[in-house]
Amino acid sequence: MDITEFVERSIGHWRSQRSAHHLAFSHFEAVQSEIDIIALSPEDPAVLELCKLYNIDPSKIVSPFRMTWEGQSDWDENAEIKGTSVLIPVPDPDVPKRGKLLRDQGYAETVAAAGDYHFTEDETFVLLTSYDRAAAEEKIWFANPNLRFRVSLIKTSAGSGVVTASFSSEIRSSS
Amino acid sequence: MDITEFVERSIGHWRSQRSAHHLAFSHFEAVQSEIDIIALSPEDPAVLELCKLYNIDPSKIVSPFRMTWEGQSDWDENAEIKGTSVLIPVPDPDVPKRGKLLRDQGYAETVAAAGDYHFTEDETFVLLTSYDRAAAEEKIWFANPNLRFRVSLIKTSAGSGVVTASFSSEIRSSS
Repeated sequence: MDITEFVERSIGHWRSQRSAHHLAFSHFEAVQSEIDIIALSPEDPAVLELCKLYNIDPSKIVSPFRMTWEGQSDWDENAEIKGTSVLIPVPDPDVPKRGKLLRDQGYAETVAAAGDYHFTEDETFVLLTSYDRAAAEEKIWFANPNLRFRVSLIKTSAGSGVVTASFSSEIRSSS
Repeated sequence: MDITEFVERSIGHWRSQRSAHHLAFSHFEAVQSEIDIIALSPEDPAVLELCKLYNIDPSKIVSPFRMTWEGQSDWDENAEIKGTSVLIPVPDPDVPKRGKLLRDQGYAETVAAAGDYHFTEDETFVLLTSYDRAAAEEKIWFANPNLRFRVSLIKTSAGSGVVTASFSSEIRSSS
């Protein structure tokens, strides 16, 4: 598994069931959402703009994509869970299976953030992202071509305390 | 990480938050439970009995332990989630970080079952257990000494279809 294959396998429409555990309160949150992942052209203006923001040579990137999500939480039914983000992998030229992932909107904060990714021997994609006041760790792996899982941890910026742990089951849907 | 260290780090009283995703129905189930993991002596009668059941030489085992759990589900508040199980690791003498885990009661069915475990490079404990009509895959890893996560998949016996995916956050508690 490398980032090109991982992105290729991720392209599509996914129905997601996400459970968030807010650890300090033993609170369960259930979120249902629809996620669309589409491939972007390396020449897409949004891609070129993000490369410029991070000062990355566009010839160094592979498989840019856009992720769009829309969902509902049982915690606050009035809150809109909705967003879209451009993501751009920049493989490390020296270390296969590692690299940076640029994004125009982070998971834990709504500012642009670049994370460090790698693949483990069991084909899990691991992404570590540091923000000003928090750090995020995501693990994504495929159970089969139409089912993938994602564990996301939101940590304190020091990295030892986990504030929220969430688990998503994502099923590819044909619609 | 090897099985001795893993069991050692697991000993204690844990407060567990578990979310189960029943994938066919997009159903969320929330379970809160208390888990006790205690070390057993290799000479404990329950340990010797289980070794005998599996025809395993007791000199080949390490770090036997007992796990006891008690909890409540939001799906069926009348159902009692309660049990206890003796577990016995039998490391593979030739392959470090691999082995069998004997247990007197399985996760997916209530019969004795032996699983195959290994540790990945990122210190995740992976356990695969085959039952007559199902297969279970568990991944357990520590975020820090007092917090561990567990992803459990219940699959059809052919192994490709996932019926239930669940995620547990387990926090060590001093009581």
